Amino acid sequence: MSEGRVYAASGLFVCFEGGEGAGKSTQSRLLKDTLESAGRTVVLTFEPGDTEVGQALRQIVLSPSTGELSHRTEALLYAADKAEHVDTVVLPALARGEVVITDRYVDSALAYQGAGRDLVVAEVEQVNRWATADLRPNLTVLLDLEPSAGLDRFAERDRIEGESLEFHQRVRQGFLDLAAADPEHYLVLDARADRDEIAAAIRTRVEGLLP
Amino acid sequence: MSEGRVYAASGLFVCFEGGEGAGKSTQSRLLKDTLESAGRTVVLTFEPGDTEVGQALRQIVLSPSTGELSHRTEALLYAADKAEHVDTVVLPALARGEVVITDRYVDSALAYQGAGRDLVVAEVEQVNRWATADLRPNLTVLLDLEPSAGLDRFAERDRIEGESLEFHQRVRQGFLDLAAADPEHYLVLDARADRDEIAAAIRTRVEGLLP
Repeated sequence: MSEGRVYAASGLFVCFEGGEGAGKSTQSRLLKDTLESAGRTVVLTFEPGDTEVGQALRQIVLSPSTGELSHRTEALLYAADKAEHVDTVVLPALARGEVVITDRYVDSALAYQGAGRDLVVAEVEQVNRWATADLRPNLTVLLDLEPSAGLDRFAERDRIEGESLEFHQRVRQGFLDLAAADPEHYLVLDARADRDEIAAAIRTRVEGLLP
Repeated sequence: MSEGRVYAASGLFVCFEGGEGAGKSTQSRLLKDTLESAGRTVVLTFEPGDTEVGQALRQIVLSPSTGELSHRTEALLYAADKAEHVDTVVLPALARGEVVITDRYVDSALAYQGAGRDLVVAEVEQVNRWATADLRPNLTVLLDLEPSAGLDRFAERDRIEGESLEFHQRVRQGFLDLAAADPEHYLVLDARADRDEIAAAIRTRVEGLLP
């Protein structure tokens, strides 16, 4: 809203985005290991849920027992999780000069609640930018995957994974559109490529950004 | 955000606002009884918490065990409660032509999270207007009370009631400023007046608004 884009003044903020089953948690762990081997202090974190309040919100948003939620309610719960995550985890670590790697961030909100639901993306974005004080990742790694390939990995699906294939296709396009609009801050990779090749591509790009 | 002010196309939406201990629940019940005696169908509701999700959020926001919350987190949790409340309780009842009386609504968010906390009121308002699809009460009854008088009623205070007297004084001024900016849609009453006199003043104003 009133604020402009904010990038970490110290440390490095790297975000992994993509659909279900694209390998975000694997690749974020591999990047963490690489950076720690090189002597960096790394905070590996995730959304939703990596704070005490976030755990409670994750339970509400993802549990199939919650049933129907108003789409605005869902978007606001995710935004509340982000506000707590940024203020209590991400910003303090960046202020200490550390590398923060997060599995999902604002793009997930825009892709899932904006493109996936019936909400106006620009309005979802305003709410999420406000929630996060408009803090942007220095780099977002988008692991792109055709949704049917990723969802096959899950026998039991939560409220979001259980949405239609069309929903997940809109989400995928939402991610790709965000990357296309700001290529300087994105690395888009085919999630079906070899695990180590993907890791090497990420490592190369991140090494060029390290403070 | 993109929407403009929305007033109920059918039914009547009345909101009670004010600080702790001002008599909102007493007066909202009295109004409900009066209107039901006159043959109206009335939904008496409240924020935060009068939905299943809202109960869980109320627990998070008000429980002293939650500890410190980022102020943005707190504001977004209240906004999520409002989104669910408006979509699942308020709008359906108004669509049936009923009278909806709510104990607290958007003004409480603006007064407590905007004026009371360190957040920019205009930004808190944008989030809350989006959460509620900009639905406005046909009438907001503000029961105005010097905070020290109201808080004396509570021996045990929750996270919000336990804030400083200065906080509650900023909240009171926030309510009064909202009423002053839109007198057509407000009735401001001195909460120390006689209970039945207050009820009569509310009844007179509401009767003039009934469809």
